Amino acid sequence: MSIAGIYPPIATPFDADGDVDYPALRANAARWMTTPLRGLVVLGSNGEAAFVGDDEAERIVGEVRALVPRDRLVIAGTGRDATRATIDACRRAARVGADYALVRVPMAFKAQLTADALLRHYRAVADASPIPVLLYDFPQSFGLTLPLPVIVSLAGHPNVAGMKESSGDVAQIADQVSSTPDRFEVVVGSAPTLYASLCVGAIGGVVAVANVVPEVCVRLYELTRAGRHDDALAVQRRLTPLARAVTATYGVPGLKAAMSIAGYRGGLPRAPLAPCPPAVEAELRAMIDALLRD
Amino acid sequence: MSIAGIYPPIATPFDADGDVDYPALRANAARWMTTPLRGLVVLGSNGEAAFVGDDEAERIVGEVRALVPRDRLVIAGTGRDATRATIDACRRAARVGADYALVRVPMAFKAQLTADALLRHYRAVADASPIPVLLYDFPQSFGLTLPLPVIVSLAGHPNVAGMKESSGDVAQIADQVSSTPDRFEVVVGSAPTLYASLCVGAIGGVVAVANVVPEVCVRLYELTRAGRHDDALAVQRRLTPLARAVTATYGVPGLKAAMSIAGYRGGLPRAPLAPCPPAVEAELRAMIDALLRD
Amino acid sequence: MSIAGIYPPIATPFDADGDVDYPALRANAARWMTTPLRGLVVLGSNGEAAFVGDDEAERIVGEVRALVPRDRLVIAGTGRDATRATIDACRRAARVGADYALVRVPMAFKAQLTADALLRHYRAVADASPIPVLLYDFPQSFGLTLPLPVIVSLAGHPNVAGMKESSGDVAQIADQVSSTPDRFEVVVGSAPTLYASLCVGAIGGVVAVANVVPEVCVRLYELTRAGRHDDALAVQRRLTPLARAVTATYGVPGLKAAMSIAGYRGGLPRAPLAPCPPAVEAELRAMIDALLRD
Amino acid sequence: MSIAGIYPPIATPFDADGDVDYPALRANAARWMTTPLRGLVVLGSNGEAAFVGDDEAERIVGEVRALVPRDRLVIAGTGRDATRATIDACRRAARVGADYALVRVPMAFKAQLTADALLRHYRAVADASPIPVLLYDFPQSFGLTLPLPVIVSLAGHPNVAGMKESSGDVAQIADQVSSTPDRFEVVVGSAPTLYASLCVGAIGGVVAVANVVPEVCVRLYELTRAGRHDDALAVQRRLTPLARAVTATYGVPGLKAAMSIAGYRGGLPRAPLAPCPPAVEAELRAMIDALLRD
Repeated sequence: MSIAGIYPPIATPFDADGDVDYPALRANAARWMTTPLRGLVVLGSNGEAAFVGDDEAERIVGEVRALVPRDRLVIAGTGRDATRATIDACRRAARVGADYALVRVPMAFKAQLTADALLRHYRAVADASPIPVLLYDFPQSFGLTLPLPVIVSLAGHPNVAGMKESSGDVAQIADQVSSTPDRFEVVVGSAPTLYASLCVGAIGGVVAVANVVPEVCVRLYELTRAGRHDDALAVQRRLTPLARAVTATYGVPGLKAAMSIAGYRGGLPRAPLAPCPPAVEAELRAMIDALLRD
Repeated sequence: MSIAGIYPPIATPFDADGDVDYPALRANAARWMTTPLRGLVVLGSNGEAAFVGDDEAERIVGEVRALVPRDRLVIAGTGRDATRATIDACRRAARVGADYALVRVPMAFKAQLTADALLRHYRAVADASPIPVLLYDFPQSFGLTLPLPVIVSLAGHPNVAGMKESSGDVAQIADQVSSTPDRFEVVVGSAPTLYASLCVGAIGGVVAVANVVPEVCVRLYELTRAGRHDDALAVQRRLTPLARAVTATYGVPGLKAAMSIAGYRGGLPRAPLAPCPPAVEAELRAMIDALLRD
Repeated sequence: MSIAGIYPPIATPFDADGDVDYPALRANAARWMTTPLRGLVVLGSNGEAAFVGDDEAERIVGEVRALVPRDRLVIAGTGRDATRATIDACRRAARVGADYALVRVPMAFKAQLTADALLRHYRAVADASPIPVLLYDFPQSFGLTLPLPVIVSLAGHPNVAGMKESSGDVAQIADQVSSTPDRFEVVVGSAPTLYASLCVGAIGGVVAVANVVPEVCVRLYELTRAGRHDDALAVQRRLTPLARAVTATYGVPGLKAAMSIAGYRGGLPRAPLAPCPPAVEAELRAMIDALLRD
Repeated sequence: MSIAGIYPPIATPFDADGDVDYPALRANAARWMTTPLRGLVVLGSNGEAAFVGDDEAERIVGEVRALVPRDRLVIAGTGRDATRATIDACRRAARVGADYALVRVPMAFKAQLTADALLRHYRAVADASPIPVLLYDFPQSFGLTLPLPVIVSLAGHPNVAGMKESSGDVAQIADQVSSTPDRFEVVVGSAPTLYASLCVGAIGGVVAVANVVPEVCVRLYELTRAGRHDDALAVQRRLTPLARAVTATYGVPGLKAAMSIAGYRGGLPRAPLAPCPPAVEAELRAMIDALLRD
């Protein structure tokens, strides 16, 4: 099975009390299933995984899985700082139906996270996880880069299926693709480089803006696969401003506001994040209108 | 009450199965109480807090508290990425007897952690915590610096008692001391700058090497307070190599090995950390011997 | 006139006394002119511009110009830290026949180099330079990024013709292209992202590896322009290892050794750079053989 | 001979045409000689060395030397990126009477500047320089740290007399002092850590703010040497705000404005630096008034 395609790293909507808003979560999942998305990534960085407890996480994955048909994929973020906690999270995600475990690089004690330590961590997780593991590299957020030799070594593990690369470094994605066997699939996690990453061999994308405008993201993907490069680049150019706004510029609060503007139920972020101010919402609305009008 | 004095950020010993080794923890706590340490910091960075679950954390704090007399202090690390999780951790620590809550800077979504967001986070925590809060700044580990204006503002909160500054930036400590009222106490978290930080107004130190040689650390502190600067500097120079070895150079595995060499029960680290190799143990033994012989 | 095409940022060969080896320089220039390169970039970073005095620089540019026909381009690196020194360098380069002045970002006093300061600097240079100016952004080397709004503003200056972007950040190149008028041309300065950068709108490349294998670089460029994406990507994959070796891995010493292996006269670097050790030369030889054999 | 004491890294005044204002330079030097400064550092970072040509540099050093009696010291900044240019600058500075050459870390090709390369560079310079060499480490400005083992090795060279450490890292200064023989003298280049650095063994300071208020800086130095720690710390606290303003906050333009306010002739900076706006001048004036009034 291939993970090729486009996924949103879905936002986790919270209500005014700071609790998970499950009805909103279900409504979003159901609506995403009316689009050509390949599946959903649950509790990635944009899902505020850092703010969600283990019991909440299990329920969130299960609720989403119930709404995603078996021929589409549920990828669950299960990375923790400790190896044992990561394994536990993989098992719980598998139990409630996740297809893949997306395992971020550990963040604690970076100075001790040598190549050997990273290999031991990921091998132990891949050995124990009931579902295939995807590596997750995002140096800007995790403060550590997964070195290429570590990736190449892990690509030989039968329970490691691929990786998500969110650095936005297209040369790095090109290396990851060209240095690993075809069965190890690389998806890009940075929307402004979606088209270029597909050009150099990425098999798909997990991009926050696909929470808001999934159809546009899938169109870019399909155009690139069809070899219609000029058209794909044109879509990329129109997509990039909103993609930036809902990540680098306004973060998860911006993403949630944009989702609500687009008819999804973004809900509130958890503190210390704060909701977007109205001026930002207006700016996002204008960007979405422009994007969908063109 | 003042927090002035020297504290080890105590290591959390694990056994070969990766479980908390409570007998070892209790043995260490009891032995530290035979030294002139002012108290213990439980589940700071060096306590592998990132690897410890909430239930484990509560039990660890409680077990330590039972062995620390009321005239000495138990400071519990309770910082989490989310405000609500941090508040919950403060309450649980208070319930089992911690005197202070040491609240690290949140690490998730750094781009959104403006001064306002940090103020909201810490104020909400300080408002809700049953015990006084200590801020905890350690940019090398947390990836974010607590800005001085935020510190100055929080120093006015009645339930914020002080802070731990682990950057090793002595000018920053000097600023923190000179910009806040006397009741806001600053302790340094970097042993190689312990003497210099005390010179510029830090009231004490929370230093990993105090797990191993608490008496030497307290001596340095007492000499500085007595105005015996040349003697204090001489102790600092002898202490620094071991202090570096059990933090920057060999990390928590080095700290645990050094503890065991010095007669404490360091136990094992949790994966992905790995125990020190024998060659490092030999190096640490030589350093400890040299330090205690002088 | 367009600068579209492939250029080597030519190495400056030095002899055993550390003097510029002008015969070697001329031999290289003459040989490059037998290839389909669009022109030569003289005294860029890879030309050891930081080690070359102003009088030497003028002579080097003049000697190269004499060997480059008027229908090919000579682009001279003329950036200095001070505005007045930069203007002087532009004038001297123009006097000896350079077609364009490549003006790197100033490196001194970065904290004071606000957008306004950068605008003032580049405008003063563009106003005074007898030849069109190309901006030069290379944050990894210069320690400062040219902000997009500054680029957009400068793109409106009649004597600013384009820029060289060496960060390897493909999304940034895409932004630079899509945010500026067509007459403002962007060339990429990072060989591992040459193909991807051309995909997103770069008009050409200035890549160190084109000192060694200019024909391969031009082939990649031509294949991309012809829409033969699979073939272009295949060339990119074969080119990348050598491209990395002569920049990030072994630097200018590696570049010079590779040139000599490929039949150019790389000469020696100036101290504190040291020549490549023989083991590296053997590695480079194997890479070049593999690349040219395929 | 010892370099113990306080020095300003003197500003280089420019006139409205951007030329060196020699009368202003001479007036400043003469006035500094009425204070207890140990000497002057000419063409350090704050002297806009990056903006000054080699002929200008020689004249500046010579003009200053003529006004500094032989029992006070002239230290000339002579570091360049290339070894040969550095040696040439040392010779020219020596010829016009400099007592010491202050040689900054090279900035070009950092990836190639291994410990070996740095050792070769500094040894070649120290071998060739007619006057003793001082190493100069300032990672925030030069982008590279001089590693301790390199310093220790160079401390054994008979023509290397000491170093200037401007990182503000007090633990690093402590290491440099304790790891080198007494004849290798360390001066601190960061005013906010002047007192703490003297505590841990620095022999003096080269601090920008000594351009403005030399007497206050020397007082801090004398109090520390006399063991009057509380008084020294009190002076440090009063000095730090102005010290920060004329470096990190407002840079060389702020330094020059402050000099003019204090009765020196700061002159203008060279472009791309711009003069301080009037609001900053007013702020600086208030800081200076407060400092001198206390």
